[in-house]
Amino acid sequence: MKITALAGGVGGAKLAHGLAQILAPEDLTIIVNTGDDFEHLGMYICPDLDTVCYTLGGLANPETGWGRVGESWNTISNVEKLGGPAWFRLGDQDIATHLERTRRLKEGQSLSQITKDFCKAWGIQHTVLPMSDSPVRTMVDSEEGELAFQEYFVHRQCAPKVKGFRFDGVEAAEPVVGAKEAIDRADAVVICPSNPWVSIDPILRVIKKIDKPVLAVSPIIGGKTVKGPAAKMYEELGIEPSSLAVARHYRTILTGFVLDNADSAMENEIKNLNVKTLVTDTLMNHLTDRTRLAKDVLHFIGSL
Amino acid sequence: MKITALAGGVGGAKLAHGLAQILAPEDLTIIVNTGDDFEHLGMYICPDLDTVCYTLGGLANPETGWGRVGESWNTISNVEKLGGPAWFRLGDQDIATHLERTRRLKEGQSLSQITKDFCKAWGIQHTVLPMSDSPVRTMVDSEEGELAFQEYFVHRQCAPKVKGFRFDGVEAAEPVVGAKEAIDRADAVVICPSNPWVSIDPILRVIKKIDKPVLAVSPIIGGKTVKGPAAKMYEELGIEPSSLAVARHYRTILTGFVLDNADSAMENEIKNLNVKTLVTDTLMNHLTDRTRLAKDVLHFIGSL
Repeated sequence: MKITALAGGVGGAKLAHGLAQILAPEDLTIIVNTGDDFEHLGMYICPDLDTVCYTLGGLANPETGWGRVGESWNTISNVEKLGGPAWFRLGDQDIATHLERTRRLKEGQSLSQITKDFCKAWGIQHTVLPMSDSPVRTMVDSEEGELAFQEYFVHRQCAPKVKGFRFDGVEAAEPVVGAKEAIDRADAVVICPSNPWVSIDPILRVIKKIDKPVLAVSPIIGGKTVKGPAAKMYEELGIEPSSLAVARHYRTILTGFVLDNADSAMENEIKNLNVKTLVTDTLMNHLTDRTRLAKDVLHFIGSL
Repeated sequence: MKITALAGGVGGAKLAHGLAQILAPEDLTIIVNTGDDFEHLGMYICPDLDTVCYTLGGLANPETGWGRVGESWNTISNVEKLGGPAWFRLGDQDIATHLERTRRLKEGQSLSQITKDFCKAWGIQHTVLPMSDSPVRTMVDSEEGELAFQEYFVHRQCAPKVKGFRFDGVEAAEPVVGAKEAIDRADAVVICPSNPWVSIDPILRVIKKIDKPVLAVSPIIGGKTVKGPAAKMYEELGIEPSSLAVARHYRTILTGFVLDNADSAMENEIKNLNVKTLVTDTLMNHLTDRTRLAKDVLHFIGSL
């Protein structure tokens, strides 16, 4: 089976990692959100892309789900001593990724080419693609005005209430070479358990059209997210956060939907959206959970 | 006594450190070469300025004389793994200096303002001034063509034979605010034992005119340099490397000259240049050596 997965950061990276345990390199392509990308301390930082790559490469910090394992913090602590911005916690190993990426971008290399080279250096065999080589910037419309995503997400720790989102540059952004081809080759597209508003929507806006069965895994379990502000965003936008809300979010493109056992009570309502369902354990604490969920998802796709 | 010192990297930093042990903060200003500055991995790096500041702040690596004590190398080793340029060995703590400096420069702050703030953060009380806020770039005319200084110095490890030097931008470069004033206030200007060709000449070219007694400490002992390519440069330019050669180099501005005991045989020839001399032990291995040489230099100035 050939799969193209759409992923944001931590949750998306975990399912992508699970899929990579089962599928051969040529059978899995992961298209990653770049709407969270930003420039900081002169470096071009791609948080979701790096989380996916670090996870697939076995380099991720298992405690946080983001950043590098065995990380040191000597640079950022010295930036702080000099009075510089230290709110975005960049580890020493992680900074290497941003410095070298920035250097290559300034040389005129594309983000997709750089990502390909980095994956090779990190021993990642499956294909990881940034959604676009053109900048797309997720802007959060909040009660305190419009905020750049990382300003909202990390610096303000999601405190300002959201009113909506804007993806600056998305109209002009083309998918990277290979993204549409990977979808055309795939048996199905899997939307990983990432934030629908700010991780998956930007990818869908760039990809525009998917002529394949689309299956989504709910990032909301029992009305809450494992990590990140998706549930809080639904609430602030006047929608009760739930698996049902996520299924409704994707309803126009959805063939199948995977929800957690904790949410089995809303399975029928989701089926009423004309969507096939799978109820299973979707929490991914360990690699074995990731692989098991990936296996469930692939079986489910096979049965559609 | 009020002193303004001119310094390059390691050797200059050591004598400046010695002078700082004796002179009160308001009585010592150190003007530092910025001709070695360059951009690397997107960061603006000032090797001589950082060596002087790290040394004065007690942050320098005592083994190398440059870089930070207790340094780690997690960023650069990961840049190397990604196939990026690792020939300039940047430590993790050191990178913080370059990142934050670059961030502030891009915000429009001047190098002198940034240096002032950094010195405060590092607990440095004496005044350290970059020679100019405008870029001056030392270019090495070599048998392999013209090379940017760090390309010659670090990447090529001074292998190409030099034919001359050019200080790109020096005509337009003004001294920073406070540099001429410090010289006007000083009883004497001390040229530290730094490379005459590539550390001191750029400063002298920017400062242009010194209406004060000028005293230089030879960076060459027994025909050799403690560190760096000064002796090799003299040879390649057809001049026998010696204290005498250094005194001749500065003769048009020189009042006094400090040479090592090892070179006492050439004291008379230096005196014949109409220059007062002091023969003493100029090697600075430990802080006590630095302070002793500084004391000798100050006594010598008092006697002129």
